[in-house]
Amino acid sequence: MLTVFGSTALDTIRTPTKTLKNVLGGAATYAAISSSNFVKTGLIAVVGDDFSRKNHNILSKYLDLQGLAINKGKTFRYDGKYDNTLSTRSTLKTELNVLENFKPIVPEEYKKSQFVYLANNDPEQNTKLIKEFDNVKFSMCDTIEFWIATKRNAVIKMIKSVDAVVINDEEAKLLTKEDNLIKCAKKMMSWGANYVVIKKGEHGALLFHEDVIFPSVGFSLESVVDPTGAGDSFAGAMIGHLAAKKKTSFSEIKKSIIYGNVMGSFAVEKYGLAGLTSLKKSDITKRIKQYEKMVTF
Amino acid sequence: MLTVFGSTALDTIRTPTKTLKNVLGGAATYAAISSSNFVKTGLIAVVGDDFSRKNHNILSKYLDLQGLAINKGKTFRYDGKYDNTLSTRSTLKTELNVLENFKPIVPEEYKKSQFVYLANNDPEQNTKLIKEFDNVKFSMCDTIEFWIATKRNAVIKMIKSVDAVVINDEEAKLLTKEDNLIKCAKKMMSWGANYVVIKKGEHGALLFHEDVIFPSVGFSLESVVDPTGAGDSFAGAMIGHLAAKKKTSFSEIKKSIIYGNVMGSFAVEKYGLAGLTSLKKSDITKRIKQYEKMVTF
Repeated sequence: MLTVFGSTALDTIRTPTKTLKNVLGGAATYAAISSSNFVKTGLIAVVGDDFSRKNHNILSKYLDLQGLAINKGKTFRYDGKYDNTLSTRSTLKTELNVLENFKPIVPEEYKKSQFVYLANNDPEQNTKLIKEFDNVKFSMCDTIEFWIATKRNAVIKMIKSVDAVVINDEEAKLLTKEDNLIKCAKKMMSWGANYVVIKKGEHGALLFHEDVIFPSVGFSLESVVDPTGAGDSFAGAMIGHLAAKKKTSFSEIKKSIIYGNVMGSFAVEKYGLAGLTSLKKSDITKRIKQYEKMVTF
Repeated sequence: MLTVFGSTALDTIRTPTKTLKNVLGGAATYAAISSSNFVKTGLIAVVGDDFSRKNHNILSKYLDLQGLAINKGKTFRYDGKYDNTLSTRSTLKTELNVLENFKPIVPEEYKKSQFVYLANNDPEQNTKLIKEFDNVKFSMCDTIEFWIATKRNAVIKMIKSVDAVVINDEEAKLLTKEDNLIKCAKKMMSWGANYVVIKKGEHGALLFHEDVIFPSVGFSLESVVDPTGAGDSFAGAMIGHLAAKKKTSFSEIKKSIIYGNVMGSFAVEKYGLAGLTSLKKSDITKRIKQYEKMVTF
């Protein structure tokens, strides 16, 4: 199985065409629902006692929730606004609420997970948590500007403790203090990451391993309405595919990147989680084939 | 043969690491020297009587210069400065000089060119010039912000008169007043372009034809010193490859895009024209193979 650890949130998302208020979101929610298309996925996260039955039902439809704590207090809330071109998001409000003092517990069953994804939580907590798994074959982490700004050394230490880092281009530059993405990746590999994936939004992603680069394009879309969770869906698909195949060869990791690009493309086509929750397995297979055909020359 | 019409300039290029003063440049110079690696290329352009023998010798080494006018006055001069990340260039000075009143003449031999590339000159002049060729099999144009701002309708008319438009992403958005690149391409196709290529710098390019999209990655480089002329080198390589093959099938156009990405990558590795003029044929073949290997999954 795959375990995903990270945030479950109630998001307010303001796009040029629609505002969603207090809808189910969070990095771990997107990543885990994305990965659940490929493999059984357990979620380690926390919500407050304000978390609705409806949202709980959405999570339980896709995920194993033994790792979901329901604590006294309010669920983590995020409020952000996109610009008119959907390329920049400004944060209006972040309320950590129950996330602030959360002590994650790894359920016994999850400890056997061979695949673990640490979404963008506190890097110190991530580094500690990964040690509780008995037999990790492949682990991956992401991080965000907030942790780079406040706990850069802990982020670097976390990178040492996982097999792969998945990070977006701006955050890769911020973290490594380099402008060139190859230099960014080399630095993260020098810190101990065996694989580095730099996500570039609509432009796809670059995978780095030793001296090899695998660049991939994004799946081109005419209509993008809400980029929220695209990067998380990308990462979830990657590790979900690997966990399903139980393989971690470089060739399989390259394929997992294609799944990442495809699941990221579904995420942005609809508002909030709808891009993922309205999917059929056949939609994914079909788009993977379209992707393969599209890039052939 | 291939005919390239456009600007030959004396550039002052200010990069974070080096400033080049009054060096040989211009869209047509980059495009034509790039295409000359694949096919005999004739240049239609103008320089002033201040154009040095050394620069003339560089051009004549690669190009047929029957179409090069040497007029009384100063050569077109451009002065631009890149920011520290090399992603934005500000124009400090543009002196049209002899370009201002240039009346291009197509030499008899060039009129038989089956392949014609109109670099970013005055769109009205481009539309007029293309009619002087007797038997065009494939024509392509680029344009720049200046013409979009001052002669948008003429740009649209020019697009109608060629087979393919090659344009960078920002200018495509500006010209079409659309934010999404698929929408940009559809609009340009609705204006009469059979093929649209949107260049995205380091992120590669998107080729559009009817309902098909062919996205391609850029060739990843660890060291980029001067982006000047990369897009022109891309376009020159594209049409140069097609002219060499004498083919214009969609499949061949896709391949030409790979040549475009590869020649663009050579252009940015060195200052000014040096990335192109220091090349051996074997360097190109080698990088094309690297590119093909790199993107395979």
